[in-house]
Amino acid sequence: MKNVKIAIIGLGTIGNGVLNLLTKERELIKQRQKVDIEIKYAIDKDENKLNHITSKDIVKTKDYKLAINDKEIDIIVELIGGTNFAYTLIKESLENGKNVVTANKALLAEKGLDLFKLGEEKGKTIGFEASVCGGIPIIRTIFDALAGDKIKGIFGIVNGTTNFILTKMYEENISFHTALKEAQKLGFAEADPTLDINGTDAAHKIAILGQIAFNSPIDFGCVYIEGIQHIELEDIKNADELGYILKLLAIAKLDPDNSIEVRVHPCLVSKENLLASVRNEYNAVFLESEYFGNSLYYGKGAGAFPTATAVVGDIIEIAKGKSHTKLKHISNHPVKDIGEIESRYYIRFLVPDKPGVLSKISGVFAENNISIASLIQKERSKEKYVPLILTTHPAREKNIKNALDNIERFDFSKKRGVMIRLIDD
Amino acid sequence: MKNVKIAIIGLGTIGNGVLNLLTKERELIKQRQKVDIEIKYAIDKDENKLNHITSKDIVKTKDYKLAINDKEIDIIVELIGGTNFAYTLIKESLENGKNVVTANKALLAEKGLDLFKLGEEKGKTIGFEASVCGGIPIIRTIFDALAGDKIKGIFGIVNGTTNFILTKMYEENISFHTALKEAQKLGFAEADPTLDINGTDAAHKIAILGQIAFNSPIDFGCVYIEGIQHIELEDIKNADELGYILKLLAIAKLDPDNSIEVRVHPCLVSKENLLASVRNEYNAVFLESEYFGNSLYYGKGAGAFPTATAVVGDIIEIAKGKSHTKLKHISNHPVKDIGEIESRYYIRFLVPDKPGVLSKISGVFAENNISIASLIQKERSKEKYVPLILTTHPAREKNIKNALDNIERFDFSKKRGVMIRLIDD
Repeated sequence: MKNVKIAIIGLGTIGNGVLNLLTKERELIKQRQKVDIEIKYAIDKDENKLNHITSKDIVKTKDYKLAINDKEIDIIVELIGGTNFAYTLIKESLENGKNVVTANKALLAEKGLDLFKLGEEKGKTIGFEASVCGGIPIIRTIFDALAGDKIKGIFGIVNGTTNFILTKMYEENISFHTALKEAQKLGFAEADPTLDINGTDAAHKIAILGQIAFNSPIDFGCVYIEGIQHIELEDIKNADELGYILKLLAIAKLDPDNSIEVRVHPCLVSKENLLASVRNEYNAVFLESEYFGNSLYYGKGAGAFPTATAVVGDIIEIAKGKSHTKLKHISNHPVKDIGEIESRYYIRFLVPDKPGVLSKISGVFAENNISIASLIQKERSKEKYVPLILTTHPAREKNIKNALDNIERFDFSKKRGVMIRLIDD
Repeated sequence: MKNVKIAIIGLGTIGNGVLNLLTKERELIKQRQKVDIEIKYAIDKDENKLNHITSKDIVKTKDYKLAINDKEIDIIVELIGGTNFAYTLIKESLENGKNVVTANKALLAEKGLDLFKLGEEKGKTIGFEASVCGGIPIIRTIFDALAGDKIKGIFGIVNGTTNFILTKMYEENISFHTALKEAQKLGFAEADPTLDINGTDAAHKIAILGQIAFNSPIDFGCVYIEGIQHIELEDIKNADELGYILKLLAIAKLDPDNSIEVRVHPCLVSKENLLASVRNEYNAVFLESEYFGNSLYYGKGAGAFPTATAVVGDIIEIAKGKSHTKLKHISNHPVKDIGEIESRYYIRFLVPDKPGVLSKISGVFAENNISIASLIQKERSKEKYVPLILTTHPAREKNIKNALDNIERFDFSKKRGVMIRLIDD
């Protein structure tokens, strides 16, 4: 039997989840895993969050220094979030010889390099399964299950809030704003949903996954991020007719030129693709790798208990003496500029129903070396402007942007064409 | 850097996959995992299989005793299959203080208990990720990611051959026999496909998964097994109209009375369920657990490289000194008799188009406490017998069988009703 003493710092939703799970299942974990986990400290700056803890064996305090200076403590569980104090806390913990388990994706994506380096120096582990998709064991899978494999691409739906909103828009025929309000009412979006809907949360996750998959540092500033806040229902409906569903995808991909693409943006996914079937608040990550082939991992992206389960898995792994940090930077792949990527595209223009317009637009596409795959002009009686919807064969993104710029400058152009990237399988 | 020396015994498809992967990626694994894996022995009773190995650093021999008596060898990789000699080999390996990695599901499902017990006694690990769905890290997930969780149910498509056949029948409107021939031509079914199509292979896998999930021994003789060899295209088409797709499911489920259901049989799966979207040779395992919630794992079920990746993952884990056996029997759940399970059912009768027949059939259902959920009688001009298709609300299986027995005895009955279990989500 291995015995570990831990301190939980931050008693919000996840912190309480960990506390409850470990209290209820301590015996089961002892029997099954031969690991006895004792919560020695529960720490929060807000005393109200400590008062409801009934166990008398747990030290309840506002002072985190007590835990990191306690020689008996093996693992500091950081669940306070944010990138400032959490950074200091993890740094001090590692320096004091503690292992760390954290769910803090923003911190790891933005300032993780230093911390992992420090962990390596000190021979201490940072467990961070809970930082990316609480209910999907994706970090463990990339690092352990694919230990001898080479990942070529990661395609994920890694944000539950945006997937919930997009599902509602599609299934209930409602606008982004109505769907967002519904998500907030049901607890799937926060009061301030900015970081979810603008793609930042997904970008944090893909930056972490990309680093483990490609063993390369990724400068978070180089991650291309586009959210779903400007998505119009009209495009979701058009996509449906074409056989596609709109998802917010987080992509990390190794290109033949040795650069990596790391990007988050709305994407039309073919209905044949399993990712298209991931509904509501669920997440899924698709991996393409050399030996293992294609695999997909699906589960809840967030929530107290799924995330707590991931935290507990990391605690047990550390208790068993497994491995140090999972972030090993043995290569250095540059991140490709978004203009240089190749993709298929969906484009919607609003054009006057007049002769010559289509010829001018298709001329610009040809000049920019873009080959059109399909084209629909919808008839709308009595309206001066009609939608022109097209999809392209794979093209370079900077050419697409150039074409949209040029077409926007035509006299007949009322507004810039809507562009959404598209993948088939 | 940890150094491990291994012997690969059995150089069929998977053995060669492991040999190739480790030869090509030895440097990458060293850098990324700080583990150096040296293949010291390649062993096969068939000399032809050894001759094509070009490396001069590998000892090629027919004599497995050389490896298990070699003090330098840390891990025996058993890839010969079968339940007799493989048993002896693993037993002797453990007795000689070797760790073992195996892909042998039949052996573990049928005779695994003794071997795991021996491993525990000797403090040696048996790695068996490759034994269940090569391209899905499901054992690792259940044991490590859900280390502190309680699994309630496992629902899996765990046999690629049968899933390929069923996909072809559904998508190409062909009979079982035509689909089987196509699968054989394309290498997705063996020349003798018996163990795949009659459900035995899937049963081996679910017996192993159930043991890890419920920490309980499972007597393989108690697993209910029904294959796909009698599936008629007609039922696949009827199911399609009702919104269901036919899959061969492997199910292990903990019931409120503390018994477990462990069964393999064809099952109609609602199209809304992600399992319904798993096509061709792919596998998927759906887990329902108390804290983690619902999660699904999808990938290739077999194939040289996916399975080799799983073997290599286990070797690395052992090299890093991680944990002993993952099969801990801390509970003892009885396996429920198939007659006692509750399920929804699809039933098809062939009945004469005459007054009174429907009333007699529905009478028998009522007597057996079975509530009918939907009923379709198809009109077929000029035919004496017409199909009558019904689905039931949840009912006890023995009542369903009793009803089918009784209905079969009616004068008008031409043949016994076809019964297929059905799940919604």
